[in-house]
Amino acid sequence: MNILDALPHIKSSSNPEDLVCYGFDACGIEGVPAAVMWPETTEHVAQIMKYAQENGISVVPRGAGTGMSGGAVPLKGSVVLSMEKMNRILELEKGNLTVLVEPGIINGRLQREVEDHGLFYPPDPASMNFCTIGGNVAENAGGPRALKYGVTKDYVMEIEAVLPGGDIINVGVKTYKGVVGYDLVRLLVGSEGTLAVATKIRLKLLPLPEDVLALLCLFTDLEASGKAVSQIISSRIIPRTLEFMDREAIKAVEKFQPLGLPDDVEALLLIEVDGHTETIKKEAGKVADICMKLGADVRMAEDDAARNRLWECRRKVSPALYHISPRKMGEDIVVPRNRIPQMLTSLRRLSEDTGIKIVNFGHAGDGNIHVNLMIDRSNEEEYRKADAIVREIFKLTLGLGGTISGEHGVGITKAPYIGMEIKKRELDLMKGIKNLFDPKGILNPGKIFP
Amino acid sequence: MNILDALPHIKSSSNPEDLVCYGFDACGIEGVPAAVMWPETTEHVAQIMKYAQENGISVVPRGAGTGMSGGAVPLKGSVVLSMEKMNRILELEKGNLTVLVEPGIINGRLQREVEDHGLFYPPDPASMNFCTIGGNVAENAGGPRALKYGVTKDYVMEIEAVLPGGDIINVGVKTYKGVVGYDLVRLLVGSEGTLAVATKIRLKLLPLPEDVLALLCLFTDLEASGKAVSQIISSRIIPRTLEFMDREAIKAVEKFQPLGLPDDVEALLLIEVDGHTETIKKEAGKVADICMKLGADVRMAEDDAARNRLWECRRKVSPALYHISPRKMGEDIVVPRNRIPQMLTSLRRLSEDTGIKIVNFGHAGDGNIHVNLMIDRSNEEEYRKADAIVREIFKLTLGLGGTISGEHGVGITKAPYIGMEIKKRELDLMKGIKNLFDPKGILNPGKIFP
Repeated sequence: MNILDALPHIKSSSNPEDLVCYGFDACGIEGVPAAVMWPETTEHVAQIMKYAQENGISVVPRGAGTGMSGGAVPLKGSVVLSMEKMNRILELEKGNLTVLVEPGIINGRLQREVEDHGLFYPPDPASMNFCTIGGNVAENAGGPRALKYGVTKDYVMEIEAVLPGGDIINVGVKTYKGVVGYDLVRLLVGSEGTLAVATKIRLKLLPLPEDVLALLCLFTDLEASGKAVSQIISSRIIPRTLEFMDREAIKAVEKFQPLGLPDDVEALLLIEVDGHTETIKKEAGKVADICMKLGADVRMAEDDAARNRLWECRRKVSPALYHISPRKMGEDIVVPRNRIPQMLTSLRRLSEDTGIKIVNFGHAGDGNIHVNLMIDRSNEEEYRKADAIVREIFKLTLGLGGTISGEHGVGITKAPYIGMEIKKRELDLMKGIKNLFDPKGILNPGKIFP
Repeated sequence: MNILDALPHIKSSSNPEDLVCYGFDACGIEGVPAAVMWPETTEHVAQIMKYAQENGISVVPRGAGTGMSGGAVPLKGSVVLSMEKMNRILELEKGNLTVLVEPGIINGRLQREVEDHGLFYPPDPASMNFCTIGGNVAENAGGPRALKYGVTKDYVMEIEAVLPGGDIINVGVKTYKGVVGYDLVRLLVGSEGTLAVATKIRLKLLPLPEDVLALLCLFTDLEASGKAVSQIISSRIIPRTLEFMDREAIKAVEKFQPLGLPDDVEALLLIEVDGHTETIKKEAGKVADICMKLGADVRMAEDDAARNRLWECRRKVSPALYHISPRKMGEDIVVPRNRIPQMLTSLRRLSEDTGIKIVNFGHAGDGNIHVNLMIDRSNEEEYRKADAIVREIFKLTLGLGGTISGEHGVGITKAPYIGMEIKKRELDLMKGIKNLFDPKGILNPGKIFP
């Protein structure tokens, strides 16, 4: 008897069209699951995990499949556990500034719902209108606002989760403070669905900032844009976002959908400050001063419509790059923010030396650069060349005190490189933890560890 | 050969007076170590941990011994590893807003040093002028400013640590973002020295807020003070501190060192807002309005001297209570902040029913109440009675969705109660992690787990 027949009350499918739809994520790797199951309660998840462990069936938890490293891509024979039907807001505690949700809720929907109450859930991955909170928790997702507000892990207070075998655990507390036992919440956050399946998540909320101001700063000198980032932070202003695009990224957007940016721009910064209206006017003024002194052309958005127009350029980067190279390779490195100019210079040299076009954009404020190798991955020679370049990029990144993934996770695509960053002893501890939670290795196998 | 003879180049002592001095912490439990060792380098710590594991010697890492739950109290025969000589600031990166320190540095010294550069390390345990960052990391220490700024775990980016056996590990990243592998940093933070010995710690810093304003709000009605807390947060103001003292705590301070507070005060709130000068004036005005409408007498401090005078009352609570009952029992519960009035009412009833005086103060903003049973622990009958009350308090706390320790940790004193909060399956996972890091059980044995 297979798992679908054994648990007939849980919605499931093994239709080929469903298997295709649930076989890939945004990184482009395609797998084929044996089946897809749509649990609607914690009890359903527990039943699936119990049966799976007893019968040696691999299970791959999945949010919206917007991940960038293959975390939700099923290995052959796996059952995909789609959490999309468990998508409710269970409890919004306005007085305590917390919200309890099911993992399948879309990030953007949660944001809008809490904003209606004057509250704020800061983590804003680029895919926020599609991706789920469960997926965000699995990957410890970031986003532009991470600079000021941190990433998903900074907002998760409590998790109800199901272990392989079906045991239901509750970790964390519903209060801001709590120091009883080891921090299993943050062990689960970012574990990429390899330790347990989250079924309820309590998130911390903040008061919604009174106002936001956005500035677009166009630089004709790459170095100057890097200096601007350092000087803004050194002047003790923490913008809520400090986004960066290089010349190639700007050119790609202009080609895809012209926004009328000048031809000679080498880099742009899109900067938002938020808070009380009077304060941010002052802060935006200081930021504009810093950028203008470094030679930038600065445009300020005074209202939401103008702010959206400024963001248009930044939001179009990813679609524009996919339009040019549908099978490009996208990396997600982070360097200490004062090392960004150095990293960008090295990337430019690498591109010139190899003849592979490299396009960079990302979250300059926290040093997180999305490095795009504009190749065709299905072309074997280009792929091999690109793999060597990726290794070189990671070496440079680590040499500057950085990390090979800031917000996309390890999944399948970064697993071969994890040993470049994590030493054997530390990796062994991680594997030991994996083994403790999942002794039979049925939960999201083939991820993180090479 | 004993460990002192085996490692003669590491400063150590087995003089009885040293053994006494390094045998207790602030919770009042006294142990007697076999020896005290003062490593000065990571290599020293590694040598000690290697020898200790090979020879089955228990090791108890210790900061300043200001802990409140016995985490640094050595069981008989243990060697105390005093980290006080490893107390340097190794690297202050102003541009990246990070600082790398050794674990023995005093929290207050670090605060002052970074403030000289216009930077800010928010976690401020009451013992900040004595306690060490290493101890703060071990206990995941909080403090009054946790309401707005979070606790120690929110600031630890990277840890170099030594495992039992002597292996040196590096966990975390020096960048704000990083999602490569499981979060071992937050597993170590709050693990109370049971998993590894931290030898270097990189902390995140913030820009120092421009200004701070303090308000003292005196209530003649306990319920009203609880309402004030809820209304302030609901009005979307997050003060940096929102401290609370009940009638008995105020009376204790007045008796210890009169500050001239009115007799009929049932509760006081000490509230600080920080940020840009114009903004916080407005916020302080709103807070004052809320409290006055609820019948409070409000005093505002306009400068640092006045602010210090307001804090005097709050700072004197702990010494005043020790003065009255040197062998009192202090608890550290947290309830969701809107449940504080309910909790305080229950505590008052419990006090009346049992005849044991209960004094409460703490961090109302995050629901963290320090509940003090004014007994003499050395009186066996009083102790037994108090133990029953503590169980009742924990039951009430957990019933309201709270936790039995907000910032003091489990250590020895809370270990018998941990099963009230953490279920067996979760506790088994924690024990599994302990066993993975410390298979011989030599590192800080007898802590956390009952």
